[in-house]
This record gives sequence, C-alpha cells and structure tokens, in this order.
Amino acid sequence: MNDLTRYISQIGNLDGIAMEKAQERLDSLVKPPGSLGKLEDIAVKLAGISGKLVSKTEKRCVIIMASDNGVVEEGVSSAPQAVTYMMTLNFIKGITGVSVLAKHFNADLIVVDLGINADIEHPLIKNKKIRKSTWNITKQAAMTCEEAEQAILTGIEIAIEAVKDGYTLLGAGEMGIGNTTTSATLLCALTGISAEQAAGKGAGLKEESYRKKIEVIKTALQCNKINTSDSIDIIDVLAKVGGFDIAAMTGLFIGGAYMRVPVVIDGFISMVAALAAFKLNPKVKDFMFASHASYEQGFNHAAAALGLEPYLYMNMRLGEGSGCPLMFAMIDAASVVIRDMATFEQASIDDEYLNEIKEGDNFTVLKN
Amino acid sequence: MNDLTRYISQIGNLDGIAMEKAQERLDSLVKPPGSLGKLEDIAVKLAGISGKLVSKTEKRCVIIMASDNGVVEEGVSSAPQAVTYMMTLNFIKGITGVSVLAKHFNADLIVVDLGINADIEHPLIKNKKIRKSTWNITKQAAMTCEEAEQAILTGIEIAIEAVKDGYTLLGAGEMGIGNTTTSATLLCALTGISAEQAAGKGAGLKEESYRKKIEVIKTALQCNKINTSDSIDIIDVLAKVGGFDIAAMTGLFIGGAYMRVPVVIDGFISMVAALAAFKLNPKVKDFMFASHASYEQGFNHAAAALGLEPYLYMNMRLGEGSGCPLMFAMIDAASVVIRDMATFEQASIDDEYLNEIKEGDNFTVLKN
Repeated sequence: MNDLTRYISQIGNLDGIAMEKAQERLDSLVKPPGSLGKLEDIAVKLAGISGKLVSKTEKRCVIIMASDNGVVEEGVSSAPQAVTYMMTLNFIKGITGVSVLAKHFNADLIVVDLGINADIEHPLIKNKKIRKSTWNITKQAAMTCEEAEQAILTGIEIAIEAVKDGYTLLGAGEMGIGNTTTSATLLCALTGISAEQAAGKGAGLKEESYRKKIEVIKTALQCNKINTSDSIDIIDVLAKVGGFDIAAMTGLFIGGAYMRVPVVIDGFISMVAALAAFKLNPKVKDFMFASHASYEQGFNHAAAALGLEPYLYMNMRLGEGSGCPLMFAMIDAASVVIRDMATFEQASIDDEYLNEIKEGDNFTVLKN
Repeated sequence: MNDLTRYISQIGNLDGIAMEKAQERLDSLVKPPGSLGKLEDIAVKLAGISGKLVSKTEKRCVIIMASDNGVVEEGVSSAPQAVTYMMTLNFIKGITGVSVLAKHFNADLIVVDLGINADIEHPLIKNKKIRKSTWNITKQAAMTCEEAEQAILTGIEIAIEAVKDGYTLLGAGEMGIGNTTTSATLLCALTGISAEQAAGKGAGLKEESYRKKIEVIKTALQCNKINTSDSIDIIDVLAKVGGFDIAAMTGLFIGGAYMRVPVVIDGFISMVAALAAFKLNPKVKDFMFASHASYEQGFNHAAAALGLEPYLYMNMRLGEGSGCPLMFAMIDAASVVIRDMATFEQASIDDEYLNEIKEGDNFTVLKN
C-alpha cells in the first residue's frame, strides 16, 4: 500500500459518544431545544470530529493551492494566466480579498505553489511545484496519473503539516486562472451532468466566451474519453480534466479528515475538489463544512452531489478561499454557544421550578 | 407635530454620492467586479448610511425589548409567562444565546423592560415600563393608542441614546413569551395574509397548541375588527394586536434611521416590527439589514413584504436578537473589504500592465 492509498483508506469515524454528549449539553442549555438550528448541528459535528465537547478552533488557516491550467489557451478566462502568479504574491502581501478577510477573522494564510507558470521563490510561498502549468485538457490529459497522485499527496501532506503546526481548523482556497473550466469539466465527469449545467461565468465571462467555455468542456470530455459510469477512477479523471490546484485541494480534504480536523469548503472549485475527495472515501465528508453558496452555476450541482448545504448566501464568486473566514465566524459562534451558555439547571428554569412560579411573582433566577 | 410624528417624518435619504464612491472603490479593488457579491452591497449601503467610504461599526449593541403579552392566557406558548422575567435577568448575567454571541462578536447588550409582568429593578435593565403586560388580544386591544405611541417613542429614544453613547451599529432583539402570536397577528393585519400562513410553531409548540394558535390569531383579528385595507393605521393596529416589545422594536428601527445608523433585524418578531416601521415611513428600510432566515414560518412573508433578503440560513428560531451578532460579523467583513483590500493600481494588475506581461515571465507585482 503506497502512502496515498494509506491516507485515503485510514480515515476514522466521527466520535458518536462525543456527539451524543454535545447534543445532550445543547438540549440542556437555556433555550428551546434546537432553537439555535444549524449552530447546534455545527457544534455536534465539531464534537464528533475532535472527540471533545468543546473543540478548539481558534488557530485556523486558509490554505491556498495555486497553479496554472493549460486550458487557458482556449480563451476560457476573462483574466490572463499571469494573474495566477500576481495574485499569489498579492496573497502574501495581505491585500487580496481572502487576505483581509482571513486577517480580520484571525486566520493565517498558507500559500502553496503547485504549478504556477513562472519561477517563484519566496519564503512565504511553499514551493511544491510539480510542473509549470498543466497541459491543455482539450488536447490531452492535464497531467499524468503520477502527477495527479503527487498533487493529491502534496495536499494531504500540507494538511498534516498544518495540523502538526497546531492548526485545528482548515479552509480550502485556490488560485488558478482557468480553474472554473477544469472544475466544471471534472464535475461533469464526477456526476454526469451536462457542460451547460456545470459551466458558469467564472470571474466575469462575457456571453460569447461563456458559450466557448461550454464547447471547451465538451471537447475536453470527448478528447479524454471520459465516461461517467459508477466505476469511474477518480484519480484518472483528476489527471485527465482536473488541475494541480484541484487535485491538491482534494488532498487537503483527505489530509484534514486523516488528521481529524474540520476543513471548510469555499466556493465552486473548492466544492468540486471536496466532491472528488468524497468519491475517494465518503468518510471525508464527515470532516467537511460547506460555507457559502457560490454564485457560480455549477456550485449547487456539486453541493447536492456531495450532500452538504451552505450556511451563507452572499452571492460571492471570488474564490481564493475568501468564503472560509466567514464560515470560521459561524464555527466560532457554534463553539461559544456550547461552551458558554448556561444550562437550565444553572439558570433555574427547569420545568419543576417553573411550575412553582406564579406569573407576576418576583423570584431569584440563579441559585448560585 | 408631536415628537413621534417628527421622528417618523424626519428620516433622511441615503447619501448617493458616498454610495457611488464606495461602488467605484469596490470596482477598483484587486478582484473581478462584483465578485464579493453581497459583501459589496453591504459596503455600499453602509456608505449611504454613514456618508463615508468606510463606516465605523466597531461599537455595536443588541437592544433587547422585553415585555409580557396578555395573550399567553390562551395557551399559545410552550413556555410560561414567567420566562420573560427570568430570561431578562439571564441576559444581563451573560448566559443566554444572545449574551454569549454578542460577547464573542464584540457587541454590548442593552436590555429594556417595557412591560415585564413583574417588578424588576436592576442597574443593567432600563426601566421603561409602560404597564405590567399587555391585555389579551383575543378579548380586547393589547393596549391603548397612547400606550402604543409611548412604546414606539421609547424605542426611538433608546436608539437615539445609544447613538449618543457612541454606538454606530444596532441590533433589534426581544424577549416576550407569547410574542410570536402577537407578531403573527400583526403580520396578518399588515399584509393581509392568513393566520395559517403567518403562524409558526414558535419556540417549540406541539401540533394541538399550534392549531389553537391559529384560532387565537383569527379571534384576535375579529375581536379587534382589523381590516387590511391600504389605509390601515399602523399605530392603531400595533395597539390592537401588537405588544410593547414589538412597538418598541418598531421605534428602534425608526430611531436608528433618524440617527442614520444601521439597524440589524433578527428573526420573525424583529422582522414584523421592521415591517411596521417601514409602513410608518418606507425610508426606514434604507437603514435596515436583514440577518438570518428565521425557521419561523411567517418570517419569509414578512421579509418579502419588506423586500429585504437575509444573508444567513441557520434555521435559527431563538429570538433574543441572537442572529444580530452573526450579521455584525458579515458587516465587519464588508467593512474590511472596502477598507483594506488593495486597488488594481496599487497591485499593478491593471489591464495595460497585464498586456505587457508574458506568461511564464517573472515580474514584480507591487510598484510601491
């Protein structure tokens, strides 16, 4: 068994006892049962992941997988390829969307170069370059199967390293001009939906380019002889129509689950990578949280296939992992609810006590 | 013109020039135009409210209007009336849902007693008691028109006082056993929807009590001779089927708008109060932000009538103002985006510059 197979296969179950205890505590808190809705669901899931009633999520990061995609040759993006490189540097300068949001919500950024189409050396950028850009998926596979495995393994190892460095909550971000096209193509391969259903307008595509994008996806699926049978080989399709960025994010979800820390999904590309990880081992889903509903059309198909619902409806479509810090705030909210609210007993609003109270009476609320 | 009429009529417009400048800045930031979705809309609206490109929203509070409702006699609530009093004390003890969420998201609580059915004296609770509990709306009007005006005016004055104390962002919370029934009845009066559409299961009503709640709403509408014509007198219906809590929240929205600060709507009761404020003067809406989509059935009808969409889908139904701190975090996010992100010019990713870049080249991103 090689390392990759080992990581994929060795993902544990949620801790059912911790989840029961979390649910019991939530039901004992001074509120009608279930009235904090999904905040309670989040708290229970976090307990299942950490095995503890209250999970530590204060040290968190957004991990940005940056890489270039050969398919940009086909004119499927509104931005030139060089933007991948430029924005990668802008991340670490702290001036992009994800940078300022991460900073505000107390999250660090980990920026990884998987295959940016430029030489890039910076102490704040992890150099995990596989190759400068994937190949054009309308003409051949994006990468070899060995490269796909390397990209996934890199993502896993980055997650493991992050957890060893003390991070207990991860977010999955990306930067790679052209990656809404590769993600949409991969989504078709993973679910069998049509190119028309999977393709969105990315970061700002005009109508003509959008129609071209749909054709590019169809061509890529045909050229790579993708069939969408149940027996699909996930690593094979990732190699054929994915990208180093998506494959590394797939690895990130697996690595987070392997290390038993929650990983937050951002937008469309992140959700497709999460779906690929889920198809490699469905248990990975237990360690994932969706965040916001991306404006990108294919997002809902990917989320439905994965079976996770977003919490935030912000019409965002930036990528970068920019939705993750917002979800970190919701996870914080779930954590303070289960940690800091008083129980009925502490607040003396148990049924027995209430029956003794006459309306209009004065009484002491807290026994202590 | 009395004070109430003056406040209601003297609500200004959004600052169109500030909004244009905010939109220009957002479009100049290093991201595809519009890609941060509703975060950008929030930033523009905040600029319209404050007249500044970047609005100060760090000092914020949730204002909880607490009061009792005579309609609880009809058995429409899963909790006894005394819970209003107990939870009001629990708010200031910092142990309830809204208390712990407000603390985490750096918001203060302002707790106001409008008509709790008990004598209550505490330095942390503003004593603005109108009367101990409203009357039972299935038998008579909840209050006199003078009392309704007093409750609204109290809400306005609390908002004005909060702004004078330095608060620049308010949230509207409430505590009042039975107030999903009064809110639903008021919603029927304001919009003409049926009791079946307006009534939800509140904090945890059983099926039989739920059916009774619907009958209670119908009885209250008949008893108080509510017609839902366009010429409806809002203060009159607030007096007939509202509550001191709802009326004070209505005032809070008006007072916030009068003082030009944003006011965040929480759940169902808060949304109905916001709708009442909107019907008194539609300009109030310009200063409101919805937060989460309450699980309470009538919420969507109220939000649709007001024309505001929530941002968070958390299935919450606690009330107290517990959704406001979560929305404060989204408002923070909008503020840091417009304040801290770099422009294309600063990041040197303007079109002209990009055209000079050859893919695969290395280059310096920032000019400065």
